[in-house]
Amino acid sequence: MHERTAGVTMLRCEDARAVAREDAVVREEPLEIRLGGAPLAVLMRTPGEDEELALGFLVSERVVRSTDDVVSVRHSPQLADPDAEDNAIQVVLAAGVEVDLDALRRNLYASASCGICGKATLDNVLREAPALDDASRFPAAFFYDLPRRLAGEQPVFSRTGGLHAAALFDADGSLLVAREDVGRHNAVDKVIGWALRRGRFPLGGHVLLVSGRISYEIAQKALVARLPVVAAVSAPTSLAVDLAERSGMALVGFLRGTTLNVYGRRERLVR
Amino acid sequence: MHERTAGVTMLRCEDARAVAREDAVVREEPLEIRLGGAPLAVLMRTPGEDEELALGFLVSERVVRSTDDVVSVRHSPQLADPDAEDNAIQVVLAAGVEVDLDALRRNLYASASCGICGKATLDNVLREAPALDDASRFPAAFFYDLPRRLAGEQPVFSRTGGLHAAALFDADGSLLVAREDVGRHNAVDKVIGWALRRGRFPLGGHVLLVSGRISYEIAQKALVARLPVVAAVSAPTSLAVDLAERSGMALVGFLRGTTLNVYGRRERLVR
Repeated sequence: MHERTAGVTMLRCEDARAVAREDAVVREEPLEIRLGGAPLAVLMRTPGEDEELALGFLVSERVVRSTDDVVSVRHSPQLADPDAEDNAIQVVLAAGVEVDLDALRRNLYASASCGICGKATLDNVLREAPALDDASRFPAAFFYDLPRRLAGEQPVFSRTGGLHAAALFDADGSLLVAREDVGRHNAVDKVIGWALRRGRFPLGGHVLLVSGRISYEIAQKALVARLPVVAAVSAPTSLAVDLAERSGMALVGFLRGTTLNVYGRRERLVR
Repeated sequence: MHERTAGVTMLRCEDARAVAREDAVVREEPLEIRLGGAPLAVLMRTPGEDEELALGFLVSERVVRSTDDVVSVRHSPQLADPDAEDNAIQVVLAAGVEVDLDALRRNLYASASCGICGKATLDNVLREAPALDDASRFPAAFFYDLPRRLAGEQPVFSRTGGLHAAALFDADGSLLVAREDVGRHNAVDKVIGWALRRGRFPLGGHVLLVSGRISYEIAQKALVARLPVVAAVSAPTSLAVDLAERSGMALVGFLRGTTLNVYGRRERLVR
């Protein structure tokens, strides 16, 4: 249960030689998230920390706003398909937490009818997750060592080369949690779900580090979690930068050695 | 229109120095796909080749099976929001092409009620896209140079560092098309949509190369397009390997210099 890798047989080719070998690949399985018995969404994810993933996903979708909103989150036995137990998770919300299930599902696949452009998308997000009121600032040197420390927390990646990762750092630079997943967005949701479960939410004053790029989806999740800074070794996208500029987030990109680029609220960098 | 990058101002930090600079980041914008006037899905994508993206997406979702299924695909003026014209695309299907819009939308966010596990997921896909009947085989040397040739077709990546890419090669090793996008799955859909538009579909005998990993989603799109081989410089996931083994696809991973790993139908590699 919750194995993060699976054994496969493959053919290893080096120049003219080809040898059959056993190999480990990262596991990818669907997870169905159920709210009060009704299926809400299916995520393709790497098994493990499914409760955190479900909670973080619900935070990002603005269903859950605090620990008090959740009564329980647990794997859900499937009468019709006992093998699938590990791949369904049931969330019970507290009385009074209202969810428009249809609107939420619509959100997950289609836009509101107000039209669809980058500006409308940002307007919608900022309506529900307003600009940050967070004075956090960091010196450039705060960031230099973060990628190496995240790499140190990635046991599966080193075996399979197949995983994205996200990590949360506090204002002192302590690594609080690191999570891996086939999906970068899932790794971020797992980190956010971890924080929610431990009562460390919202995440003002903290820094999120992600492997790969900072897409709009990642920036949006970070804003909802009230993170003032997202850092990455790679580039941000245009819509992520737009959201950062409008919300007061700083995006630290191209974090390599002692060089980095700051997009969005550049004043978060202490000169 | 269709600019793939956007100009932003950022702070470049090198050791102790910090200088404000203009930079180019990859554009990311929502695209709403409409079928017969009804919104079907919103994809976050890099503008450009939106018609191909919409067609490839509909192929991957098994709505469109041949060029004959499509009457037209074009950007859709939005009365309510003229700025959004570039971000909505209208597909008109031929008479007789049946679409269960509700079932399709459900597919995009939630599972069928039959239970959810990797095996059920694969059973569902293989029911609609059966195992390949394609005898294609390739020598290892066929693959060595593909990543370098894809890189040569990636003008935006070199400027922004922010894009995934996919390319299609024929059995002679000719590069037919390469597409870039913030989403790897979008880059693959653009390639498939390109092939559909040019009457080169299905894609038996061809090879798809993707940047990054081979996830289940990528393998599934390739199978629906009848591609016998997917190659990548990085790793496949467990569910992608499972699907390849059951469908007769070969996944070439860790393609670096003259070494590579073959997962799935290893016999597609000529010894």
